[in-house]
Amino acid sequence: MFNLIHQDKNSKARLGKLVTAHGEIDTPCFIPVGTQGTVKTLSCQELEESGAQIMLSNAYHLFLRPGREVIKKAGGLHKFISWRKPILTDSGGYQIFSLALLRKVNDRGVEFQSHIDGLKHFLTPEDVIDIQKDFGSDIMMPLDECVHYPCAQDHAEIAMKRTIDWAKRSKTVISENRQLLFGIVQGATYEDLRKECAHQLTDMDFDGFAIGGVSVGEPKNLRYNIVNFVADLLPKDYPRYLMGVGLPQDIIEAVESGVDMFDCVVPTRYGRNGTAFTSEGKLTIRNSPYIEDFRPLDKGCSCYTCNNFTRAYLRHLFNSGEILGLRLVSLHNVHFYLELMHKIREAIRLDGFREFKKEFLRNYKLDNHRTLEPQNIRTTEH
Amino acid sequence: MFNLIHQDKNSKARLGKLVTAHGEIDTPCFIPVGTQGTVKTLSCQELEESGAQIMLSNAYHLFLRPGREVIKKAGGLHKFISWRKPILTDSGGYQIFSLALLRKVNDRGVEFQSHIDGLKHFLTPEDVIDIQKDFGSDIMMPLDECVHYPCAQDHAEIAMKRTIDWAKRSKTVISENRQLLFGIVQGATYEDLRKECAHQLTDMDFDGFAIGGVSVGEPKNLRYNIVNFVADLLPKDYPRYLMGVGLPQDIIEAVESGVDMFDCVVPTRYGRNGTAFTSEGKLTIRNSPYIEDFRPLDKGCSCYTCNNFTRAYLRHLFNSGEILGLRLVSLHNVHFYLELMHKIREAIRLDGFREFKKEFLRNYKLDNHRTLEPQNIRTTEH
Repeated sequence: MFNLIHQDKNSKARLGKLVTAHGEIDTPCFIPVGTQGTVKTLSCQELEESGAQIMLSNAYHLFLRPGREVIKKAGGLHKFISWRKPILTDSGGYQIFSLALLRKVNDRGVEFQSHIDGLKHFLTPEDVIDIQKDFGSDIMMPLDECVHYPCAQDHAEIAMKRTIDWAKRSKTVISENRQLLFGIVQGATYEDLRKECAHQLTDMDFDGFAIGGVSVGEPKNLRYNIVNFVADLLPKDYPRYLMGVGLPQDIIEAVESGVDMFDCVVPTRYGRNGTAFTSEGKLTIRNSPYIEDFRPLDKGCSCYTCNNFTRAYLRHLFNSGEILGLRLVSLHNVHFYLELMHKIREAIRLDGFREFKKEFLRNYKLDNHRTLEPQNIRTTEH
Repeated sequence: MFNLIHQDKNSKARLGKLVTAHGEIDTPCFIPVGTQGTVKTLSCQELEESGAQIMLSNAYHLFLRPGREVIKKAGGLHKFISWRKPILTDSGGYQIFSLALLRKVNDRGVEFQSHIDGLKHFLTPEDVIDIQKDFGSDIMMPLDECVHYPCAQDHAEIAMKRTIDWAKRSKTVISENRQLLFGIVQGATYEDLRKECAHQLTDMDFDGFAIGGVSVGEPKNLRYNIVNFVADLLPKDYPRYLMGVGLPQDIIEAVESGVDMFDCVVPTRYGRNGTAFTSEGKLTIRNSPYIEDFRPLDKGCSCYTCNNFTRAYLRHLFNSGEILGLRLVSLHNVHFYLELMHKIREAIRLDGFREFKKEFLRNYKLDNHRTLEPQNIRTTEH
């Protein structure tokens, strides 16, 4: 199911291949986020042409709207959204704990009110897997309890233990359709909690392991440390998935710690705000220097946007409130992320990940000042 | 420049071909509207794949934003927006008379304030052609004065005479680049004014003739009569362009009167509102009957939307506020209009336009009640 192809000689970065019912995924991979069954502004065709091998959707959102019956009757999520490659569905645990109203948790499950229409729902961990079975997701995530930063240790421990219990119950809901189920390591920023969670989950024989509860408000260094710490605890022969992370530099850092899979709303969220990722750093297309700049967003980029349109035109589209602008910059950003992962994989294959990282960061200008960085990324797109 | 290929034996409908610097256009044709240099929500590639042979843009809008210098430096409008087929630019006369602030007209030209930033501008008819020369439009429209309905005859006459004077002055601004210039027939709903305007303009040797000042609030029957009346006044060997019209049934009616060219914001405007045009009439995708309707918008339609997505999914996208929904229905609608024109041309070729019209209207359910029909179509997209 997961084939660890090569380990970089000079770092913990890994090259792998994940096999799912709807196709193979080369890792390290980036998973574009289509919370509501569409990667915002983009068509499935554009996503596929950009090189995406998998997309992410959200069970909580789709359960509430359009509802599990609609998707079931459509013949599953792939058919409903017309995407033939693999789909990973997030359970929506994070959304229930951050977005839903009047939430009541007990060991049996969660009661909450829909953030859309206020209707009450009760979901058990078993329900959440059942929903994802109806959807036909290639990779399912169990219901988990994710805490914010900072979080007291006793609170973090309760959430972590509940996450383990729910993971165990999720395993009992057998799937016949080659659907994979990952375990999610929680435990906030406490190494002993993370360790206990990782050990208990690895004993349970999941198909892969996710690192949850990061990028929830903690300082960057703490995040890097926890990711590195947890990655070391996970078995080598299983894929490791860092949920909701992140910016290009965050992904590179985590790949170096041995993480294989990433998802984040950043490329599309930033795209809709007119911020493009380029090999030289971020570019804010509304800015006046681009009024008569007839170069593409990123020289050397092969995406549809860069092949056809100039910064001056993109700036005009944003200033005129034209939807095509949101589309073209989102498309470029998703392409940039997928191309970054491609380059990362090539570097690992040649045992040159460290050099790649150095070279990338030399060209890629990081902001010196504190900018609007995406925190709570798993929840922000709703 | 215009080749009248065939005249339907049983009606005044005509089949033709218009040759421009950037390619040929089969007529009767529909021109998708890209007011600000983009057909709203769609890419140039999608437009071309839908079969569009020409698009429309607006000189007034592009003059104000991004400005004529930007487009000139980009190498013209085609390069700026990355569209290699013909472009017709509306002068913006209509916009100046409906959208701009604090307008002062005299015989020399128009002073107005930008509706975007309030800055004052003064444009003569010569300026307006110069701008379109800088843009490199394949078909240029002269500055005209368009009145609303109802309009007193003396007022309509002043506007009509000014339109003629401005048309004459527009002719003096010579273009070297095979750019075509059309004359615009004004005269409100007064047949004698329309007649005078048509005669004076045809004496001036324009490359084609537009019927302006319709769809400005007048009753439908009056509009049909005026269009039919003016079309009869125009020379046979020149293309006839009905500006800003309209719904499928309006286009079919005007084709029967001998009109060759149409533009309208309706397919994209309606698309963004979730109203799809189908062979059976309009379809409002948000409506509840479509919750579990897994059929395409229009059975037999070959567009990307109908080939890949169901009504249920499109409804979900609109209900979830997803931009992909606006895109997919706009794309379908533009395809529907272009396909309608294709069928109209085939019917004329076979001398069967009347039968086609009858058959189309038998299937196409018209609203019985008064719905939100687009009036003032030349001005509404801004």
